[in-house]
Amino acid sequence: MKKRLFTPGPTPVPENVMLRMAAPIIHHRNPEFMEILTRVHEDLKYLFRTTQPVVVLSCSGTGGMEASISSLFKQGDKVITVNAGKFGERWGQLVRIFTGNCVEESVAWGSAIQPERLAELLKENPDAKGVCLTHSETSTGTAADIQALSRVVREQSDALVLVDGITAVGAHEFHFDDWGVDICITGSQKGLMMPPGLALVAISERAQDIINAHKGIPQFYLSLKKALKSHAGDDTPFTPAVSLVIGLDEALQMVRAEGIENIWTRHENLARACREGCNALGMKLFSNSPSFAVTPVWLPEGLEWSAFNKALKNKNGITVAAGQDDYKGKIFRVSHLGYYDELDMLTVIGGLERALKEVNFDFEIGAGVSAVQKAFLGS
Amino acid sequence: MKKRLFTPGPTPVPENVMLRMAAPIIHHRNPEFMEILTRVHEDLKYLFRTTQPVVVLSCSGTGGMEASISSLFKQGDKVITVNAGKFGERWGQLVRIFTGNCVEESVAWGSAIQPERLAELLKENPDAKGVCLTHSETSTGTAADIQALSRVVREQSDALVLVDGITAVGAHEFHFDDWGVDICITGSQKGLMMPPGLALVAISERAQDIINAHKGIPQFYLSLKKALKSHAGDDTPFTPAVSLVIGLDEALQMVRAEGIENIWTRHENLARACREGCNALGMKLFSNSPSFAVTPVWLPEGLEWSAFNKALKNKNGITVAAGQDDYKGKIFRVSHLGYYDELDMLTVIGGLERALKEVNFDFEIGAGVSAVQKAFLGS
Repeated sequence: MKKRLFTPGPTPVPENVMLRMAAPIIHHRNPEFMEILTRVHEDLKYLFRTTQPVVVLSCSGTGGMEASISSLFKQGDKVITVNAGKFGERWGQLVRIFTGNCVEESVAWGSAIQPERLAELLKENPDAKGVCLTHSETSTGTAADIQALSRVVREQSDALVLVDGITAVGAHEFHFDDWGVDICITGSQKGLMMPPGLALVAISERAQDIINAHKGIPQFYLSLKKALKSHAGDDTPFTPAVSLVIGLDEALQMVRAEGIENIWTRHENLARACREGCNALGMKLFSNSPSFAVTPVWLPEGLEWSAFNKALKNKNGITVAAGQDDYKGKIFRVSHLGYYDELDMLTVIGGLERALKEVNFDFEIGAGVSAVQKAFLGS
Repeated sequence: MKKRLFTPGPTPVPENVMLRMAAPIIHHRNPEFMEILTRVHEDLKYLFRTTQPVVVLSCSGTGGMEASISSLFKQGDKVITVNAGKFGERWGQLVRIFTGNCVEESVAWGSAIQPERLAELLKENPDAKGVCLTHSETSTGTAADIQALSRVVREQSDALVLVDGITAVGAHEFHFDDWGVDICITGSQKGLMMPPGLALVAISERAQDIINAHKGIPQFYLSLKKALKSHAGDDTPFTPAVSLVIGLDEALQMVRAEGIENIWTRHENLARACREGCNALGMKLFSNSPSFAVTPVWLPEGLEWSAFNKALKNKNGITVAAGQDDYKGKIFRVSHLGYYDELDMLTVIGGLERALKEVNFDFEIGAGVSAVQKAFLGS
């Protein structure tokens, strides 16, 4: 049975990327590798829309989040975090561990924080040193308006703006420099169409100044100061995950070839088609501000998750993501982040139809895939 | 020109390992991946000669060293480190950053600490909570007698024994349980014949108890407590470097097939042949306790490193490692760690001969490769 992945990380890896990584290993101090890393550094600036350094860390996206917190702040620094799902919650965990002074704003799952509410929070906490946001909250498939949120912070305070862009970079329009963001993190296994193992962190000029003067929290492997120092020489402080960096080079060539604006539009269209396909099958959407990376869907009443998932996975080879925490067994999440095209949306919605039929759910066969076709081709 | 790597990490990756990693990516919560991780966990126990957990971290070997220090100790804990090269020095850096109380013993490069000296250090520092050792010091190609050193610690104190086994595991005889070691770290790109990106950390029972009760140093991504908790369910706390774990599974099957004792013997023999080849070319060996992973050689008088290296690399496709720090341009290091066999030693010594000839060094052509043949086949 053919297997197809529709999960928000790992996401499918293109064949040419896999083949580049399968070539004989080279040494990370060889000129050949340093040339690759130099190009990767340039192409990451293109991806993040920045002239500032984007460092490559050999760790997961969470490692990149920790690196940011422990490199920018010190014990006692007040940092505002927004918890609207599992990954916003992680910002809070990290701040509590490393500074011990977290103002955590809770937002209902499926919603995003509004700029007005953030403005209030900043008024209540004028001493906040940072604001941690999530662009696309993977656990809820919900996107926040980072442009507006960042503007509020920049207008009202000197707090740094940290953005978890892990499932947003490459899916949602994003301008690191123009939007005044200080830190943005993504992971290799998301919009970048790579296996997991690398975190990429863009760092603004004022964040660099703070990091370079930093003497706060004990850190070593995840030090952005070390990473920045090496980055200046197109190097890394520790042995990098060489084969993954080489794959990233290949993936970034694909990003350049397609064009970042086209990639954003593609994701917006894929997400819309996915939502319309689900709607046409009588399934309700979970988020009131849906991400372009992952579409969360309520399981219709009477539909049991494990039976439905078994029908999807074991009979149709399709893996989607389950709901998390309180929404386990209540929602599921269809990802279209990275290496997906319009025909792939027919596949996943067609697969949902096949699984619904398998578990005897009542719906009109073909309605989902027709809606997908109409979403792309018009009616 | 064919390119051949004789560096102590990255080391060559076998074709079947590269191909396994080039297969379509799978999700880390899929049963298929969890089955692989379960097998990897078992096979790592075999590799380290332990019944205790060996956790897989997605980071470099240094990340594994940091994880050990920050997970075991707290601010103020006195830890003895041995600095006999760049990687012993790293133990000291980490201890100073995370506990602030380091007793660092300096040993001349090319030598290893003697058990008697460690006994004295322990007598002088009865309050030491840990002793950090390096099994094979990569920068100097020098091996320490971990069995004897660990015995001294266990007989004289309650200090934990931490071993950087990064270039030793898979090259030198090592028995985690029988030798009473508490922590041993290796990296994927060393004896395990993999690209870089994973650290493997074996953890003794008493170290686990300390880690699980640990409330000391702020940490998150590199927490061994989190890693142990996930390990118990054959899982990882954060998205692992999936393709590298799959490659590791393949590499560990090769380790099982060859047998760990045979692998140790192979490395001992490769190292001996390499040393005898160099001797026969009139080159002096650097270490008085040579590692089986990497052979450090003095550059003969009158031989200029950059010209010699250029002849090796550009004319013969062979990459060896330069000397580091004070020994830059004075020594070079030939690695035979991981995926090497006896004929490979003919290649590297033959390559050295070709490069020596290229730079008009006076030696007997064929003497090196003859010595290699005799080392393996007898005279």
